[in-house]
Amino acid sequence: MTGSYPAQTPQQTRHKDIGRLLLRCPDRAGVIAAVSTFLTEAGANIISLDQHSTEPEGGIFLQRTVFHLPGLSAAGPELEREFAARIAPAFDIEYRFTDAAKPKRVAILASKADHCLLDLLWRNRRGELDMTVVMVIANHPDLADQVRPFGVPFVHIPATRENRAEAEARQLELLRGNVDLVVLARYMQIVTPEFLAAVEAPLINIHHSFLPAFIGANTYRRAKERGVKLVGATAHYVTENLDEGPIIEQDVVRIDHTHTVEDLVRLGADVERAVLSRAVLWHCQDRIVRHGNETVVF
Amino acid sequence: MTGSYPAQTPQQTRHKDIGRLLLRCPDRAGVIAAVSTFLTEAGANIISLDQHSTEPEGGIFLQRTVFHLPGLSAAGPELEREFAARIAPAFDIEYRFTDAAKPKRVAILASKADHCLLDLLWRNRRGELDMTVVMVIANHPDLADQVRPFGVPFVHIPATRENRAEAEARQLELLRGNVDLVVLARYMQIVTPEFLAAVEAPLINIHHSFLPAFIGANTYRRAKERGVKLVGATAHYVTENLDEGPIIEQDVVRIDHTHTVEDLVRLGADVERAVLSRAVLWHCQDRIVRHGNETVVF
Amino acid sequence: MTGSYPAQTPQQTRHKDIGRLLLRCPDRAGVIAAVSTFLTEAGANIISLDQHSTEPEGGIFLQRTVFHLPGLSAAGPELEREFAARIAPAFDIEYRFTDAAKPKRVAILASKADHCLLDLLWRNRRGELDMTVVMVIANHPDLADQVRPFGVPFVHIPATRENRAEAEARQLELLRGNVDLVVLARYMQIVTPEFLAAVEAPLINIHHSFLPAFIGANTYRRAKERGVKLVGATAHYVTENLDEGPIIEQDVVRIDHTHTVEDLVRLGADVERAVLSRAVLWHCQDRIVRHGNETVVF
Amino acid sequence: MTGSYPAQTPQQTRHKDIGRLLLRCPDRAGVIAAVSTFLTEAGANIISLDQHSTEPEGGIFLQRTVFHLPGLSAAGPELEREFAARIAPAFDIEYRFTDAAKPKRVAILASKADHCLLDLLWRNRRGELDMTVVMVIANHPDLADQVRPFGVPFVHIPATRENRAEAEARQLELLRGNVDLVVLARYMQIVTPEFLAAVEAPLINIHHSFLPAFIGANTYRRAKERGVKLVGATAHYVTENLDEGPIIEQDVVRIDHTHTVEDLVRLGADVERAVLSRAVLWHCQDRIVRHGNETVVF
Repeated sequence: MTGSYPAQTPQQTRHKDIGRLLLRCPDRAGVIAAVSTFLTEAGANIISLDQHSTEPEGGIFLQRTVFHLPGLSAAGPELEREFAARIAPAFDIEYRFTDAAKPKRVAILASKADHCLLDLLWRNRRGELDMTVVMVIANHPDLADQVRPFGVPFVHIPATRENRAEAEARQLELLRGNVDLVVLARYMQIVTPEFLAAVEAPLINIHHSFLPAFIGANTYRRAKERGVKLVGATAHYVTENLDEGPIIEQDVVRIDHTHTVEDLVRLGADVERAVLSRAVLWHCQDRIVRHGNETVVF
Repeated sequence: MTGSYPAQTPQQTRHKDIGRLLLRCPDRAGVIAAVSTFLTEAGANIISLDQHSTEPEGGIFLQRTVFHLPGLSAAGPELEREFAARIAPAFDIEYRFTDAAKPKRVAILASKADHCLLDLLWRNRRGELDMTVVMVIANHPDLADQVRPFGVPFVHIPATRENRAEAEARQLELLRGNVDLVVLARYMQIVTPEFLAAVEAPLINIHHSFLPAFIGANTYRRAKERGVKLVGATAHYVTENLDEGPIIEQDVVRIDHTHTVEDLVRLGADVERAVLSRAVLWHCQDRIVRHGNETVVF
Repeated sequence: MTGSYPAQTPQQTRHKDIGRLLLRCPDRAGVIAAVSTFLTEAGANIISLDQHSTEPEGGIFLQRTVFHLPGLSAAGPELEREFAARIAPAFDIEYRFTDAAKPKRVAILASKADHCLLDLLWRNRRGELDMTVVMVIANHPDLADQVRPFGVPFVHIPATRENRAEAEARQLELLRGNVDLVVLARYMQIVTPEFLAAVEAPLINIHHSFLPAFIGANTYRRAKERGVKLVGATAHYVTENLDEGPIIEQDVVRIDHTHTVEDLVRLGADVERAVLSRAVLWHCQDRIVRHGNETVVF
Repeated sequence: MTGSYPAQTPQQTRHKDIGRLLLRCPDRAGVIAAVSTFLTEAGANIISLDQHSTEPEGGIFLQRTVFHLPGLSAAGPELEREFAARIAPAFDIEYRFTDAAKPKRVAILASKADHCLLDLLWRNRRGELDMTVVMVIANHPDLADQVRPFGVPFVHIPATRENRAEAEARQLELLRGNVDLVVLARYMQIVTPEFLAAVEAPLINIHHSFLPAFIGANTYRRAKERGVKLVGATAHYVTENLDEGPIIEQDVVRIDHTHTVEDLVRLGADVERAVLSRAVLWHCQDRIVRHGNETVVF
């Protein structure tokens, strides 16, 4: 929209020929050696390699590898075929290769509150978030004027408790096949299990408390009533169990008796937008692995 | 015990002639003027004056005033009589005068864990906490050798679920009339409503989570299972409702997937001792006013 | 610009009849009583009263009082006259009354970086900052499109080392008499002592390090070279001595060896905008008193 | 000394058969594959593997590998010989193998301040620090009684500006060959380049400011005079350039105008002991690699 920002290397250039390999398998000796040898022999230079074992022994082994391979976009499919044939079976590896130069396609669902939505759009315009925002869907029209300057389509789909099925059907029409991630940026509506099953992309939500404290609604009012000295926010993947999905990131801010509920809402907004943007960044960089109801963030 | 610490002005000297006045009354105009004029006319110099109204209008007015009055220990009773006669009735004021030179008498109840207990004893030896520790009561003998070098009496009163009534009776014999505050420094035993009613001093407890998350036991294990990214601690006054008393102070520390439950216990211990020592300090400085289930910390 | 934000009480309504009195005088007994009695007799209800003595004895006494006085805008001048006649002389008080309902008029000076500027404009649109942004002056045209949606005049005055005198003259023409505060939001140009003397309003600057570390330019590069584990930002009043004015607020963020200089710039930007917005808010609420080269933030 | 602490697996058991390999070499493809294949073929299971390249291209490659090898203490020398013969030359690798079951031998140098010293001794008694404290050397006798209960030898070697050469000679007699690390726990004396050259072990110091702010002495007084809003502490390796060695860890605490210099000293002490203990832990776990004047902390 404005051509004159401080020059930033476009993501496609910065991440050219950078591949990521995420894998999971039963924990046993030799996986790191086998995978790193495979990549090296394929001509790749390993940039970083992180791993985690869920138990001291007999658990699950998780690994994220970032590598540089000249000509990745052409060579990728062959690399993946080779890996599937020669390495994966020997260690029972589930895996996923991604090309860092292909930003994730992200839809943001919003309502009336602007802070999380605008912060995501602003950070992405600065080149911080490694994503393409393909659309904003809101159940109220209020934020249209705010979104327009970012050059992102804004779609108003009224959604209430009453018309949920119909609203979700319209959303799915837009989303299915078009997005790699859906972000609920203070969307304020329940998402049904049917929607989750149908949308074919993970959802990240921002909850306005440091879960598991204050599960549910009206968290800031309840925080004030309980007299806590910290309020916080939690970014998590959405599952069928409301507010109980795997936590990606949390943070808190200090409050005291002088703060009203309105002050808590305002101070909490700063934590919400910071926490959500970190969670989205990490997801877009393929840093997060879900394991049971926990996340490993490499 | 060791005569060679860096010289510190003893509390009795530092706080000589320093008085504190805590008051509470219906919120209406004129209280600050009346109280400050009264103190000034009595020859006192107001050092600090903090106040809080619980509602914008029609709530409760709370105030903490610190003042310097030459000859306070002699003049105090007369000052209090005058205040009771001339000021308090006009505004329906409940109040309490304290002499800052008289440190609070504190008993610490402990079990096997050393971190909170030792940190309190060590900070107090440095002159940080404005209190006199009159005794440590423990339901296990393990920490006796740790406490002895601080010159504080260590009393072992075995306490379990089975002998609770008898143990509390022995504790009350020691405590009643002898202490201004009881600190539960990871004491790990339930305290009965009967004990609370009989002890005639407030109790401060340290809970090993950022309440209201993880009310109850095994907080670090449950934190690990829930996959939270922060663990914390909460210092609160003890009431009949377990883990639901007024919160004084809270803090958190960041964790990640690499931390085991044992790591959480270790990291949490640092937060527990820091949070508890701040709560005890503020209490001993008469900074805390309870209002409903909240605290105002001036 | 958009009519549909969550309803906020306009500042003029929220702060109706709220006055603030800031004063400074030699520290001696009776000031609090005299001032609070004066306000009470004038019909005011004191909402909060903070004070600070710069020395235990014989220093300067500083006080900020917030009060509610029905009909303040009409009654203010008379109140001030009375205070000048009856109270100020007896205690050698320098003072300033302000009407909380009159937001400070603020000009923001910017260059090419958007983060501090946009955060101030966004927070102010939400009603967080108690100010009116009367203009943005930038020495580059780049941010014009960003500023326009906020309904704030954007003035492009090219400024470089070479044309400084001329640029400052044009800025002064716009600023003098029209603003209560000038905010340098990553303005990146030296401000001359002549400008400071002529502008007749205080200036707040944001420095991209935790001063006094890394005084001067290229702070993030130097932070990387020194291998620090924290980077930060400092908001301060501008004086003739570059980077040495009274500090208002500081904060830091943790970094490690994996971060490049570019990452430091990005992470630092979040701290810069947070620190600057807090400093501006406190200034606009008349919370800051300068004393020597320090600030007291009530 | 006290037999009844909560059971902890002794380090020798916990870390049995755990080896660590730290290496450094020019950055080129294949190192990870070669090293991990070597370890796997030797029968080791890689537990964690961290690496860092100092430049995007053509820099230095640093790696820390933790592995489990049954019978390590017997098999270690052969493993090392094989690595030297087969792997190191091919990649110009400098390396160091360590046995995690052999705790580092640490001497602590102290003066009169107790907080850093006691915190290290206390944490180590809890089993947190993976070290053996072989002696405390102090230039004042004051802390002898504090150290004795920990069962650690306390040696009093008076040291002043005047007798520095003699004092250092006596220190070296005790230290040389007996320690793997020397910790300056608020030692308050200059260490000469001659001492550094002769002691044959790295030194870690704790500086009472967030370097590079307030290099030198009287940091808290200077912090108060400058009016900063944060004070901090820095743990760093000691080099010939005072206060300029590689930084290992830093942290800060918030202060305001109400704090005296004495308060800053007290608040800073908490940061000092926390920062120093983290630095010592990381060193003892072979997590720190020095590169130029920076540290990589894996």
